[in-house]
Amino acid sequence: MRSPIGIFDSGVGGLTVLGALRQRLPAENFVYLGDTARLPYGTKSAATVQRYAVNAAAHLAHHGIKLLVVACNTASSYALDVLVSTSAVPVVGVVEPGVRAAVATGPGRIGVIGTEGTVRSGAYQATLARLAPEAAVEAVPCPLLVPLAEEGWGDHPVTDEVARIYLKPLLEWRVETVILGCTHYPLLRPSLQRVVGPAVRLVDSAAAVADTVAVDHADLVTPGSGGGTVRIELTDASDRFLRITRAILGGEPERLAVVDVDSGSP
Amino acid sequence: MRSPIGIFDSGVGGLTVLGALRQRLPAENFVYLGDTARLPYGTKSAATVQRYAVNAAAHLAHHGIKLLVVACNTASSYALDVLVSTSAVPVVGVVEPGVRAAVATGPGRIGVIGTEGTVRSGAYQATLARLAPEAAVEAVPCPLLVPLAEEGWGDHPVTDEVARIYLKPLLEWRVETVILGCTHYPLLRPSLQRVVGPAVRLVDSAAAVADTVAVDHADLVTPGSGGGTVRIELTDASDRFLRITRAILGGEPERLAVVDVDSGSP
Repeated sequence: MRSPIGIFDSGVGGLTVLGALRQRLPAENFVYLGDTARLPYGTKSAATVQRYAVNAAAHLAHHGIKLLVVACNTASSYALDVLVSTSAVPVVGVVEPGVRAAVATGPGRIGVIGTEGTVRSGAYQATLARLAPEAAVEAVPCPLLVPLAEEGWGDHPVTDEVARIYLKPLLEWRVETVILGCTHYPLLRPSLQRVVGPAVRLVDSAAAVADTVAVDHADLVTPGSGGGTVRIELTDASDRFLRITRAILGGEPERLAVVDVDSGSP
Repeated sequence: MRSPIGIFDSGVGGLTVLGALRQRLPAENFVYLGDTARLPYGTKSAATVQRYAVNAAAHLAHHGIKLLVVACNTASSYALDVLVSTSAVPVVGVVEPGVRAAVATGPGRIGVIGTEGTVRSGAYQATLARLAPEAAVEAVPCPLLVPLAEEGWGDHPVTDEVARIYLKPLLEWRVETVILGCTHYPLLRPSLQRVVGPAVRLVDSAAAVADTVAVDHADLVTPGSGGGTVRIELTDASDRFLRITRAILGGEPERLAVVDVDSGSP
């Protein structure tokens, strides 16, 4: 088998990135690792997230991956540097592609929403300052949005109300673009778009990550229009996670395994 | 130092049980372990929760504890049997004391709210069937209540709305007593009591657990009116968890350490 691309997320939100990658690279093989036994990462400290990310990368390395996609904003924010310095293969995070997509139509007033970890890390703020120094940036943590997405309440009055509370400072500031700084948030698009109004652009990094992989790593990807495989590995397979996995994939996963990555062994 | 009582929870919700124990046994020494690096347990599978609980118990055993209190409903529901069979010291869970407190004033219509794991395990339902076979029981999972408690929204319109949705079947059934089947839920009492109305009794197992320890294990506890110590250990110490810890304890913890329990070693 050709070497796969490895994708890693704290849970199943990163399947939105897998979906965009499969659409862009239909001949490619993918191994997706969701660390569902230890999620969420967004409320935990930098030290813990770095340790978990290194475990996950070591596990995927045993699959002989040729490229590592960190499809988790908290891990991309806290652990990208350590993953780049310890990984034998190229590493693509979600922060920079998301920022590029957000500033593609001009800087303006850019809001970032994400977990506490992602916002506190300052990764989006630093990347925006580097790539679009003229943009005005406000970032707000939204801790309840991941649980709401996992509850399947992406189009729900409670989510509208929670989003209204969290996004109030951005709306008062007349934000123009909001970066969805968590791979779960595309599941909340109906509520979020309703709350920000039709004039505000919501930027989801999934397609941008797929572009980055296809263009910046064109030498590694498998050309072709189909035939790629997907293997999904979860560190915990509760009914809950399987239900969300099916909802995001739109059906049963082809290959699914439960793995233990605590020790970093395969 | 006299042997301490060990208390274990997936996170910081179990500090509500620690509070009741300190009040009941002020001369006692306690070691509290919150597995904040791997929380929540409530959404994860039985196999994962059992593995984590055994790790945590092994870690506390290295402190020379004389009694283990499992101050987590999900762990009590999924892992009490395995802890009892592997522990060298007596083990007290939260389910049976909570049930005893609920049925003390007569059986009637008893509702149980808890995590998905706690409700699916059937532990409350089985314990109620054993101790109060004439009681009518309905249990409903409430996955968003822990994140709402951790957000500090225990007295908040969003929590009222979420509770109204989750508790609707219990209210239509004219529930008389609701067991708070998660050690985080006492933090939500203002919203929960508002939603169920003043006539419905909310039963929190913290005081009942303290009674069980003091009465059923009177031979082990340290008598006296003061002088006990508390050591708190967390597997992750993000600002978020420290903030919630302070809120529950009403101040800074006296002794706090960050520990690694993944391997079950101290």
